Amino acid sequence: MNSLTGAKIAVVGAGAVGAYYGGMLAHAGYEVTLLLRSDFDAVRARGLIIHSRGQTLQFPVKTAATPCEIGPVDLVLIGIKATANQALEQLLPPLIGQHTVLLTLQNGLGNDDFLAERWGAERIMGALCFVCLNRIGPGEIRHLDHGSITVGEFLKSDCPRTLAVVDAFVAAGIAASGVENLQAERWRKLVWNVPFNGLSIAAGGVTVADILNDPLLQSEARALMYEVTQAADSMGYFIEPDYVTYQINRSWSMGPYRPSSLIDWQLGFPVEVEAIWGEPLKRAAAVGVNTPRLQLLYSLLSRLTSVRQC
Amino acid sequence: MNSLTGAKIAVVGAGAVGAYYGGMLAHAGYEVTLLLRSDFDAVRARGLIIHSRGQTLQFPVKTAATPCEIGPVDLVLIGIKATANQALEQLLPPLIGQHTVLLTLQNGLGNDDFLAERWGAERIMGALCFVCLNRIGPGEIRHLDHGSITVGEFLKSDCPRTLAVVDAFVAAGIAASGVENLQAERWRKLVWNVPFNGLSIAAGGVTVADILNDPLLQSEARALMYEVTQAADSMGYFIEPDYVTYQINRSWSMGPYRPSSLIDWQLGFPVEVEAIWGEPLKRAAAVGVNTPRLQLLYSLLSRLTSVRQC
Repeated sequence: MNSLTGAKIAVVGAGAVGAYYGGMLAHAGYEVTLLLRSDFDAVRARGLIIHSRGQTLQFPVKTAATPCEIGPVDLVLIGIKATANQALEQLLPPLIGQHTVLLTLQNGLGNDDFLAERWGAERIMGALCFVCLNRIGPGEIRHLDHGSITVGEFLKSDCPRTLAVVDAFVAAGIAASGVENLQAERWRKLVWNVPFNGLSIAAGGVTVADILNDPLLQSEARALMYEVTQAADSMGYFIEPDYVTYQINRSWSMGPYRPSSLIDWQLGFPVEVEAIWGEPLKRAAAVGVNTPRLQLLYSLLSRLTSVRQC
Repeated sequence: MNSLTGAKIAVVGAGAVGAYYGGMLAHAGYEVTLLLRSDFDAVRARGLIIHSRGQTLQFPVKTAATPCEIGPVDLVLIGIKATANQALEQLLPPLIGQHTVLLTLQNGLGNDDFLAERWGAERIMGALCFVCLNRIGPGEIRHLDHGSITVGEFLKSDCPRTLAVVDAFVAAGIAASGVENLQAERWRKLVWNVPFNGLSIAAGGVTVADILNDPLLQSEARALMYEVTQAADSMGYFIEPDYVTYQINRSWSMGPYRPSSLIDWQLGFPVEVEAIWGEPLKRAAAVGVNTPRLQLLYSLLSRLTSVRQC
């Protein structure tokens, strides 16, 4: 796969992230089909709607209600929640041909491994989406801030396909870049997700701005960030010391943004507790790094998210 | 003060704890006056009601609506919430004569110091109440479990008055004992209060049994207990290593008990966050002991309790 031009692309799990990145590729002319359930009728009737930076894009996208209708494709974008990964065992096989590439847009750790174990490590790519998105209705996405995507390979080899995917996103108007070490990038992203997604729930439903403006919570966010960087460093994923301050500083522009996990929790949807907190905790423990705050946060979140919110 | 026989006793803050211990002294014939506000009419009309161990005690108790009606007494039992300590600056002076003893039944750290700074260290005593009580209505207390009281002096001198207070509680049917080092006992009590009161709120409103039955939460309770014992040890308040396991084991008998802080939080009342978590955290930091879980828990509780529950 040297270019996505003419390639068939399917999106599985077209929530905010899947619909945004898949939709932007479709808008740029790539051949994208969204696999949809609840949003199927709305998108078929009036296309996808993306509100972004003061303008609204509304455009038709190919849709399918089952993966068999789509058949084998060149690339699958996976935007499903990690908590629903088991569903992929039914959804992916019809889409997978000999050379199909699976690109997971999912947060946290363990999703690449899940895919690799079942469909082969060779075909697995991962992306990290640095973006503030909310799904505000069926097939209707609000893009609030940021938007870049970082793409890498599960196996650390250099690949022309990485560049092909990056090129396609860039052509779709998205700041995209390739990365040599995907797992290292995943740990870098956790530096933000662990504290902000976690504290936003554990502190009772607070926004990014709330955390930054509360001296105790901001201090805990920093402390959690240091635990994550220490764990990453011990695994050989070096994170520069001023990265924590960089992440705190860049978060101010998000304002009263509700991290995706908080929104899921408040809506009573499953929260990706294992991918974002449980798996990093396990991997930190496996290399002997003590992460007491992460452990307490994980334990609280496991409990808090096991009870349905009203 | 060599005996409480014939001594005048006032109770300030006759919530569950103040009403129970003061009420039991009154029931045993000691001259106790409860300073009451919202419960005044009910207690004046039909006395105090204590449901305990399958039986109900209902008996008249002297009541007053203002401290001036009571005047100087020999002993004040202080059961007010630590968050309302400022109110003591108005409530206590009319009760204090030259030899008046102030016995705080309050939880956590800092309350003895608050009293000592204002009314002199000599007159301050403290008690730790190991008891499960709920106030179920005006002047009506349910005694669920345990019930012992440990009494000590703010200044570490041996005092005949310690024995006098202990004797009175014993005469009232309460398992009471004197303790040489009050601050050491306070730290021993925090070993339980820090995790159970704290996690019960932070995990979204869970009982003692919920915490014990959830492997992650029980593990965090133990880890918090170790942080508290390490801090105590560093201050010279030695706590034996198996005390954590002892505390976990004894908690099973409490069943689905809601710690007092959880009840306060759920009812929208102030929670003693500084006394139970903030002050211990400060004192641990002052002796250079790192207590990351306590810090995270304190920060979460500060936020969670600053927002009124519905």
